[in-house]
Amino acid sequence: MLVACSGGADSVALASALAFEAPRLGVRAGGVTVDHGLQAGSDARAAEVVLRLRELGLDPVESVAVRVGREGGPEAAARDARYAALDAAAERHGAAAVLLGHTRDDQAETVLLGLARGSGIRSLSGMAAVSGAGGRYRRPFLQLDRQTARKACMVQSLSVWDDPHNADPAYTRSRLRHEGLPALEKALGKGVVEALARTAQLSRDDADALDAWAGRAAAGVRDADGRLECAGLHALPPAVRRRVLRRAAIEAGAPAGSLFARHIEEVDRLITGWRGQGAINLPGKVVARRQGGRLVIRQG
Amino acid sequence: MLVACSGGADSVALASALAFEAPRLGVRAGGVTVDHGLQAGSDARAAEVVLRLRELGLDPVESVAVRVGREGGPEAAARDARYAALDAAAERHGAAAVLLGHTRDDQAETVLLGLARGSGIRSLSGMAAVSGAGGRYRRPFLQLDRQTARKACMVQSLSVWDDPHNADPAYTRSRLRHEGLPALEKALGKGVVEALARTAQLSRDDADALDAWAGRAAAGVRDADGRLECAGLHALPPAVRRRVLRRAAIEAGAPAGSLFARHIEEVDRLITGWRGQGAINLPGKVVARRQGGRLVIRQG
Repeated sequence: MLVACSGGADSVALASALAFEAPRLGVRAGGVTVDHGLQAGSDARAAEVVLRLRELGLDPVESVAVRVGREGGPEAAARDARYAALDAAAERHGAAAVLLGHTRDDQAETVLLGLARGSGIRSLSGMAAVSGAGGRYRRPFLQLDRQTARKACMVQSLSVWDDPHNADPAYTRSRLRHEGLPALEKALGKGVVEALARTAQLSRDDADALDAWAGRAAAGVRDADGRLECAGLHALPPAVRRRVLRRAAIEAGAPAGSLFARHIEEVDRLITGWRGQGAINLPGKVVARRQGGRLVIRQG
Repeated sequence: MLVACSGGADSVALASALAFEAPRLGVRAGGVTVDHGLQAGSDARAAEVVLRLRELGLDPVESVAVRVGREGGPEAAARDARYAALDAAAERHGAAAVLLGHTRDDQAETVLLGLARGSGIRSLSGMAAVSGAGGRYRRPFLQLDRQTARKACMVQSLSVWDDPHNADPAYTRSRLRHEGLPALEKALGKGVVEALARTAQLSRDDADALDAWAGRAAAGVRDADGRLECAGLHALPPAVRRRVLRRAAIEAGAPAGSLFARHIEEVDRLITGWRGQGAINLPGKVVARRQGGRLVIRQG
């Protein structure tokens, strides 16, 4: 089992908890820190984290340097590089799981970031406790508040490092953490973080159930040639129909990340507001049109 | 058709729009203002609103004085009194609909208030465009931003009244409007209000679809005596099972408003985490227990 550790309080607390529990459970436990190379001296800091993880008794411990690209903005690019490095480390060491230090506060921030997209309950469902290929990534602190992780480091005199990125107002998540969420707590009360985390879990279960329904429904509304029948689509609840349409657009080649609620609404109007409108252009050169009683979604 | 008008910009703009459109549509249009009696001079202000509505050409126009109780807090009590008065006015005048001036900004605030409850997607679904008995209440401005309503009043030189309650930090909604939402916009960008309003619509459709599923599922998991079968419940997706359990608790007499996600989670553990635990006490003296392979939820 590996713990991913940035040197920040959350993941240091997690590394310490893993180092404590692993021998009792007969589990071999190591640690990885990722050097994103985005700040001067990041390599020295990574070496420092390696030292701390070794002192905790973790073995093997390594630092992995990555090159962060630009795709999707600085935060997404750093995240992509980090998970690629962690995947590779897990393979290299034959790790059954990689533990991540995300707390309930991170979860609350993720829900608000999803809310800002306005694209529905899947984006409100935050991070999963178990995710990745084969459930590799585990987030045991997802129900724990950040303050508790900080205290755990303090009482154990573990030195932690505060990433200046986390306080840099150039980053959306940082603005949210230091301004947005505190203002929301001031307006709505102290339970907001917990409420957001609970919303994540409930939304995830709801989204899973509706996706399963849409999967079954998609099969039921196709004719013998596999084309979507408008009458069948019309009879579905809007929430299920929109998911069937979204899925069909993605199967036809539309990139999921560029397919917004407004696109699906427009396709939906071919079913629910039919007045002879023309073809709808979707991302990825996918086109949706109504032909006779059928909805045809395909590329080109 | 009646418009409910507080004298604030949103509902004055709506009253003016109704006064303009109604004669063109051959619809008889009147207005109602509710005097909540919570501030000195509220009766004089209500009389002033009546005058303004008459000047717009609405007829009949009336002011209704209500007595605001205390149940559920000051905001809920005022809302209950207001809707009771509007219901009565609609009956009295035989109105087919009562128009309400809620804007997209009100909707965004309502979504955040629901989010703070952390009780799932139904509480994220905000206000419906059509609600009340027989769809009496209509909210034609639910997609419109508050600024547009304000501008409409300005360009028509309609005098509007800013309710000091709306700026009083003693009220949650007011704190949200003047501090919480602006801070969230600063962190997440200007599209937050629109994203929240879209989330409301998507969540509403999702919640409706899942409620319908739970309604069907509830019938399918009962034995010949109408008792819930644990095996059947276990096979349902968590999102559907929780709704079936919630519905059963309410049918047994638990008040919906006091039944929180954590109650349902505890009942759910009788199904998914059975280790011989005892009866679960729910609000309204409702008790849930597992007996043999059945789940029994009843009062007392």
